[in-house]
Amino acid sequence: MTPRKDLLDIQSLTDEELEFILSNAVPFKNLFKRSVKKVPTLKGRTVLTLFYEPSTRTRSSFEIAASRLSADVTNFSVSTSSVVKGESVLDTVATLEAMRTDYVVVRHSMSGIPNLIAKHTNASVINAGDGFHAHPTQGLLDVFTLREVFGGDVRGARVAFIGDIQHSRVARSTNLLCRRMGMQTAMLAPGSLIPRELPQEIAVFQDWKELYAWKPDVIYLLRVQTERQNVPFFPSIGEYHRLFGLTDERLKWARDNGIWVMHPGPVNRGVELTDSVMEYERSLIDQQVENGIAVRMSVLYWLKPGSSTEDKP
Amino acid sequence: MTPRKDLLDIQSLTDEELEFILSNAVPFKNLFKRSVKKVPTLKGRTVLTLFYEPSTRTRSSFEIAASRLSADVTNFSVSTSSVVKGESVLDTVATLEAMRTDYVVVRHSMSGIPNLIAKHTNASVINAGDGFHAHPTQGLLDVFTLREVFGGDVRGARVAFIGDIQHSRVARSTNLLCRRMGMQTAMLAPGSLIPRELPQEIAVFQDWKELYAWKPDVIYLLRVQTERQNVPFFPSIGEYHRLFGLTDERLKWARDNGIWVMHPGPVNRGVELTDSVMEYERSLIDQQVENGIAVRMSVLYWLKPGSSTEDKP
Amino acid sequence: MTPRKDLLDIQSLTDEELEFILSNAVPFKNLFKRSVKKVPTLKGRTVLTLFYEPSTRTRSSFEIAASRLSADVTNFSVSTSSVVKGESVLDTVATLEAMRTDYVVVRHSMSGIPNLIAKHTNASVINAGDGFHAHPTQGLLDVFTLREVFGGDVRGARVAFIGDIQHSRVARSTNLLCRRMGMQTAMLAPGSLIPRELPQEIAVFQDWKELYAWKPDVIYLLRVQTERQNVPFFPSIGEYHRLFGLTDERLKWARDNGIWVMHPGPVNRGVELTDSVMEYERSLIDQQVENGIAVRMSVLYWLKPGSSTEDKP
Repeated sequence: MTPRKDLLDIQSLTDEELEFILSNAVPFKNLFKRSVKKVPTLKGRTVLTLFYEPSTRTRSSFEIAASRLSADVTNFSVSTSSVVKGESVLDTVATLEAMRTDYVVVRHSMSGIPNLIAKHTNASVINAGDGFHAHPTQGLLDVFTLREVFGGDVRGARVAFIGDIQHSRVARSTNLLCRRMGMQTAMLAPGSLIPRELPQEIAVFQDWKELYAWKPDVIYLLRVQTERQNVPFFPSIGEYHRLFGLTDERLKWARDNGIWVMHPGPVNRGVELTDSVMEYERSLIDQQVENGIAVRMSVLYWLKPGSSTEDKP
Repeated sequence: MTPRKDLLDIQSLTDEELEFILSNAVPFKNLFKRSVKKVPTLKGRTVLTLFYEPSTRTRSSFEIAASRLSADVTNFSVSTSSVVKGESVLDTVATLEAMRTDYVVVRHSMSGIPNLIAKHTNASVINAGDGFHAHPTQGLLDVFTLREVFGGDVRGARVAFIGDIQHSRVARSTNLLCRRMGMQTAMLAPGSLIPRELPQEIAVFQDWKELYAWKPDVIYLLRVQTERQNVPFFPSIGEYHRLFGLTDERLKWARDNGIWVMHPGPVNRGVELTDSVMEYERSLIDQQVENGIAVRMSVLYWLKPGSSTEDKP
Repeated sequence: MTPRKDLLDIQSLTDEELEFILSNAVPFKNLFKRSVKKVPTLKGRTVLTLFYEPSTRTRSSFEIAASRLSADVTNFSVSTSSVVKGESVLDTVATLEAMRTDYVVVRHSMSGIPNLIAKHTNASVINAGDGFHAHPTQGLLDVFTLREVFGGDVRGARVAFIGDIQHSRVARSTNLLCRRMGMQTAMLAPGSLIPRELPQEIAVFQDWKELYAWKPDVIYLLRVQTERQNVPFFPSIGEYHRLFGLTDERLKWARDNGIWVMHPGPVNRGVELTDSVMEYERSLIDQQVENGIAVRMSVLYWLKPGSSTEDKP
């Protein structure tokens, strides 16, 4: 396997790399059952988190993943400082590069910023979400979770994404990877939130009845990104919940049919789902969070910076 | 001693547990005199701080305590992120739980939130202050400080709390523990700020003269929680200082009578006290801060998560 | 060499101390070429950053420097917490002191605050910038960079500072140290931004032509501190750029004459310089950032707290 510098999207991963990341996440996850949840793998390496959008969950997940590999983490808090001083992204990157950090974990509201950064630094760049584009570690953790649920062989499993597909980098990355692993995917979304350039083989439904008829194994509820939308794509939150939310009635159907439920978090109770979903025995939401740390450890391990000049014989 | 999961309040501590925490804080404090102020006790364990109210001092105290035990600390900054996204407390807790963190140190403006969290996580929850309810590590550090001052035997020592007793979780926790350790306590407070359900054996004074006559050994100045009051309980800050502040004149009396002065910090100079108190030779304010770290180390050590499934033989 | 407690300014450093810091930064910098960029030198020591002005770059630089020496770092975030509660600087210092931190790295908008803090704590205080007064680690890293460029012997090198000299602690510290190391310095600044009490031997120019004629080896562009000025010292940003900025035309002259360019960062593109400067082959801007970490490691190492009571035989 050729060493790789960055993880920017799902597409560029080879099958071998994909398998490497997913299978190595297993022993990392097993580590969490021990009292000392730490290995010395990345001792002395530096991970820098560079979040232009706030996200405590994803940032903490990477931070904990790095700590459990014994790396040192520095949070470069962009919002409070550099932006105040009007520093541009590339100048920030030049700074990080000069600081000789080994990894940069970046989130930005604009698509393509992680790629731009990756071109200008020798550090390994991990895309932690860019605009509507990609969120590759989310895709990886979701598929890792599905492999746990379906006992390794996920081929033929049917996953339906519900909600704002148009603005969801999660849907994009996870859907892509699901299909690549041989799963069937479908979408249930408000007409205004379905991307136009969808591949023909993805089923698109207008209501839950059509969806039921498709017999999904997994319902993947997307987050309503109220903070990322400038245009009102649906009349109201109540209306969204009525049409697309996993209501108690729909949850009954899910339970009766043994359907698994996923959500990238954080959930909006009363919007994408009702309170009762949070206690649903086939909800994978918390498992996704735990797997997120294991998969991110595996990604950091996979990108482990090669031995440097001085280390070489 | 039965292993315990959480520290939520003072009441639930047994005498044996109380003694365990207080006596183990001594060697931890001695550690601070060494150049390497660190022991490997909690290596590989994760401490997560979850502060819904800002508090640099208490958060840093826990952070340093955890570091000195070699634990990894992650600050889950609620204010900047989750709240922006409207995530509820329990959903946050489910996330932390899934992250397999060993400890959650929580502060919240609502009473009972740490108890609620503790019920929903396997992590050890430490209450770092909830509403007007409790602040158990403050009580412990205060009593630890009083044991240092009175040479171990604190029975019969007389402690007077001055100020906003009604809204003070500090007064609640420290007073409770003082009485339990055999000390006498009294209160000097504006009439509007005395809790109605006070036990009869607690003396309540209306002015400093009455207080003098009671012959206190310790004056415990409570912080005026201007940010936590919605109703104006006293006409003005100047008025408060005049009536309840430790003025230079009252400090003279304290000095003449060898009275110790405590305050949970941060102080409001010109409100609870005058500048000269900060240099007063019998002020215990800084000693309280140092002891805070030692006592918190002791609490973390006491709650040390047991060996997990895999560690068991 | 007598052990020293603090680094508050450049003036108080002896020649021996200066040489110690600069020469020890070399092996620390070499460390960055290795994959494990860490030494155990300060294991168990605590570094506290106390920034009253936001600065992600300088704070991260110190944080990474401390981590690479295996120290534990706690960020005492003043803006979000203590200031909210109105805690004064000295009360904060008393708290830090009681926390038995080994180092305090302080930045404040008022000159002299680090000196004040140093007097009230046993911790080693490092001035990370105070008002218009001093920024000693910046001076040290700049001179360290110049020694790399000029092969050790910097005597006779000609450094010209451009811009808001009046409000620049960078200009103050770097200029002072440059002259002490035997360099020639000059200033090009708006008339309103030249300090009145400049030593006679410092050349002052009114325009770039005069500057060219002086034949500088290094152009040191100062940052326009828009956030620190209350009075409009020059008509507009565009006007500043036209008169004092390193424009493409002036960059051509610099390139033709092999002139080095420095800037303390973060740059204001279109103000102090044009985009093309960022790719200029003789720009030392990124090298300054990297050297910042090495020099700060060296400063922390130099101030390494002596063995404490218990460590003594």
